[in-house]
Amino acid sequence: MKKFLPLVALALVPVGQASPLQAQASARQVAGQTKPSPLAPGEIVAAAPKADWIAIAPADLLVMDLVPDAQGAERRVVIQLIPPPFSTGWTGNIRKLAAAHWWDGLSINRVQDNYVVQWGDGNAEDAAKAKPLPAGLQIMGEGDYVVSARECPETEKGCKGAPLPLAAPQPGLARDPYAEEAGFFKGWPIAGDGRSDWPVHCYGMVGVGRDLSPNTGSGAELYVVIGHAPRHLDRNIALVGRVIEGIEHLSSLPRGTAGLGFYEKPEQRTGIMSIRLGQEVPGLPVYEYLSTDSKSFALYADARANRRDAFFIRPAGGADICNVPVPVRRASGSQ
Amino acid sequence: MKKFLPLVALALVPVGQASPLQAQASARQVAGQTKPSPLAPGEIVAAAPKADWIAIAPADLLVMDLVPDAQGAERRVVIQLIPPPFSTGWTGNIRKLAAAHWWDGLSINRVQDNYVVQWGDGNAEDAAKAKPLPAGLQIMGEGDYVVSARECPETEKGCKGAPLPLAAPQPGLARDPYAEEAGFFKGWPIAGDGRSDWPVHCYGMVGVGRDLSPNTGSGAELYVVIGHAPRHLDRNIALVGRVIEGIEHLSSLPRGTAGLGFYEKPEQRTGIMSIRLGQEVPGLPVYEYLSTDSKSFALYADARANRRDAFFIRPAGGADICNVPVPVRRASGSQ
Repeated sequence: MKKFLPLVALALVPVGQASPLQAQASARQVAGQTKPSPLAPGEIVAAAPKADWIAIAPADLLVMDLVPDAQGAERRVVIQLIPPPFSTGWTGNIRKLAAAHWWDGLSINRVQDNYVVQWGDGNAEDAAKAKPLPAGLQIMGEGDYVVSARECPETEKGCKGAPLPLAAPQPGLARDPYAEEAGFFKGWPIAGDGRSDWPVHCYGMVGVGRDLSPNTGSGAELYVVIGHAPRHLDRNIALVGRVIEGIEHLSSLPRGTAGLGFYEKPEQRTGIMSIRLGQEVPGLPVYEYLSTDSKSFALYADARANRRDAFFIRPAGGADICNVPVPVRRASGSQ
Repeated sequence: MKKFLPLVALALVPVGQASPLQAQASARQVAGQTKPSPLAPGEIVAAAPKADWIAIAPADLLVMDLVPDAQGAERRVVIQLIPPPFSTGWTGNIRKLAAAHWWDGLSINRVQDNYVVQWGDGNAEDAAKAKPLPAGLQIMGEGDYVVSARECPETEKGCKGAPLPLAAPQPGLARDPYAEEAGFFKGWPIAGDGRSDWPVHCYGMVGVGRDLSPNTGSGAELYVVIGHAPRHLDRNIALVGRVIEGIEHLSSLPRGTAGLGFYEKPEQRTGIMSIRLGQEVPGLPVYEYLSTDSKSFALYADARANRRDAFFIRPAGGADICNVPVPVRRASGSQ
């Protein structure tokens, strides 16, 4: 059987010429003069020292348990919520909804191939049957889809009228058709135009379903990207997190056959047993992400863009931001 | 229920400034001075005149029938083979394999989330059990992963020492971290560097599994992309086609739990009943693709990159090539 072999990169190509954005990034990050690694991306990640990993607080995790599958196996999906300054109104609402156990008994209502899986109240558009929302949810404005420098609190590093400091460890990230710059902020893929920054719709990212503008969605209706990154949605809809474990339970669901991938009949929808914040889940493992300000991440990003292991003939010499997924794992010794 | 509404684009933004590549492309295509359309991408496609659609010959189709699903429903996957000058040695082999009914009884052996579904002989690495290949299969060299201008026959348009004429209807396509230019050739997404051109690993593209270099694969082991476009594979492995119908039968399969998404046990693999060339399939519908040299396609690509319908607040102003999938459909009146 012909296989794709484990990815062993002999990254003998220099990191590359620095664009103005890269030079700016280099001034802000540890790995500005990183020598390429001879290891594969996965090996670099596995070899990264403990200090390069940042634990995720349970309060930043959303744990969705679907009804068991046909064989009775549990199906748990773990989502990491995006940190401030991004989408704080929506993540605040999501925390309220999770604390209220609001999603319990609701369902996966839409699975559209090469696009999204979406869940929430299947009766939301029927006033007689729609599930009442908890009190106290915020309503956000469209300006909140992005973070503008001038809105940053003065205590937020790099916010004195300047854009957020994005780690841009790969010069190729600057050739982005959707934004002037793309990089990473505290472990998240972010794009920007020099005045504002916003999260990027990569595979596995979770966003907030909404109606037409000016509606911005409360967070009660959520979706995850299960195909090629739909970057045209950036800045048009709120991104609130990413699936860090269990995405296969969503991406392998049968596709809906009604328009846009909605299910024709309610009985076709997969049920949600519960969605809880991490601190409410007994025995939840500890998860950690590879710091995007670390040398390990810079080496990893370089290896993603320049694959020189035996399997590869020609390293690409660049990568798009969604092809440099931030490593997230269970902390060792954790369940 | 919050829904993504059908995409209605009010494309009031001009197509955009022409880069040198775009100017070059404009000289070669019909739609050089296209005015943006007020319609959504899907509406533009639906409204495209019959003359803009090009029928696909049955001989260019590979029809894979998987064993029926748990409810007894048939699962047919239709693949369009890429035309010359790309990957001709491999497509030639695939035609021989299909004509010999070689894949009958074989299986889907690997499903890796956000990456590929792969199929072929599950025993290929066991000399005692491996299924013998038909005689007469060609062996290709690594140089065949790309098409170099100087290798084009003189009768091939645009080949007199010049790269293939790529339709580049969207200036944003030039901001590609993987190639100097990206565009479309006879309905296929192609990247190039001014000297060579090669097919691009977008969602749904089908490629040839291989061992380590210098092995290039025969075509007996195939895979399809089911996640974010793994562009780092471009030029490193042969691309031979794309799934034009039925991809959900592959993308929704359970993910393999052994390394790289292979299935742990043979009984977990979904069986392949048959793979046939189109002319051997009674009653196969006629399929057609939207000509990438047509004005309709240029309007569609512009609408993909500049979404101005009521749902969108801010058009992206650009798109990556894999976010402009070439429309393919059953011809009207066809089954």
